[in-house]
Amino acid sequence: MITSLNHIGIAVRDIEVSKTLYKKIFGIETFHTETVEEQMVQIASFNIGGILIELTAPTSPDSPISKFLDKRGEGIHHIAFKSDNVQKELSRLSEEGIQLINSEPKDGAHEMLIAFLHPKSTGGVLMELCQPK
Amino acid sequence: MITSLNHIGIAVRDIEVSKTLYKKIFGIETFHTETVEEQMVQIASFNIGGILIELTAPTSPDSPISKFLDKRGEGIHHIAFKSDNVQKELSRLSEEGIQLINSEPKDGAHEMLIAFLHPKSTGGVLMELCQPK
Repeated sequence: MITSLNHIGIAVRDIEVSKTLYKKIFGIETFHTETVEEQMVQIASFNIGGILIELTAPTSPDSPISKFLDKRGEGIHHIAFKSDNVQKELSRLSEEGIQLINSEPKDGAHEMLIAFLHPKSTGGVLMELCQPK
Repeated sequence: MITSLNHIGIAVRDIEVSKTLYKKIFGIETFHTETVEEQMVQIASFNIGGILIELTAPTSPDSPISKFLDKRGEGIHHIAFKSDNVQKELSRLSEEGIQLINSEPKDGAHEMLIAFLHPKSTGGVLMELCQPK
């Protein structure tokens, strides 16, 4: 089951430049920063009333974020929903005809198990499901 | 002050087709539907743990959503943050050098006053500020 919105991922080119910009917009300091080797990204989050706004910059040209930036430029990359059971949710969605990017959960930031759904079958929206480990 | 995330606006071509798709994804019914004449849009929202996922379809080719769909296709259109005082927040952001689309709040869905910030100065993210009337 999908229980809540966890975060909004925003693709940025330079994490420090964007941290400065978003601090100005939100009027608050960053909540958390982290490098996720597996995803080849560096993240910096702001906590807005319990929802994280997660700036995500590539650490390698092979990062999926680099490809997104080349194609679309900076902007909203994905939205992530918390589930009580990502594996079960992936099975349910697959049976409903939703195309999965990850058929098995994998390691993400914030000590989470994560999996992405394919935007081709979710109305052009890249969606992530996540669950605390 | 920005206090919380209110909703995520998703641009869709056909509200009924997309309602069916998102019902399947979220496993729940829509929370609210409304037509906002001033914005030339029809909306259908899902409530995910207190955050609205707002499907937004144009009711006219002159709607800003029509222009977005022509350029980008279906997908995430904007994110909306609740503020305790939109007018004051617009002044603060303008002083910080953020470009505004609306320098004065105007009528939006859900009996809200709303105003948009220009994505050119917010890292490619179209942001809305909103406040209950």
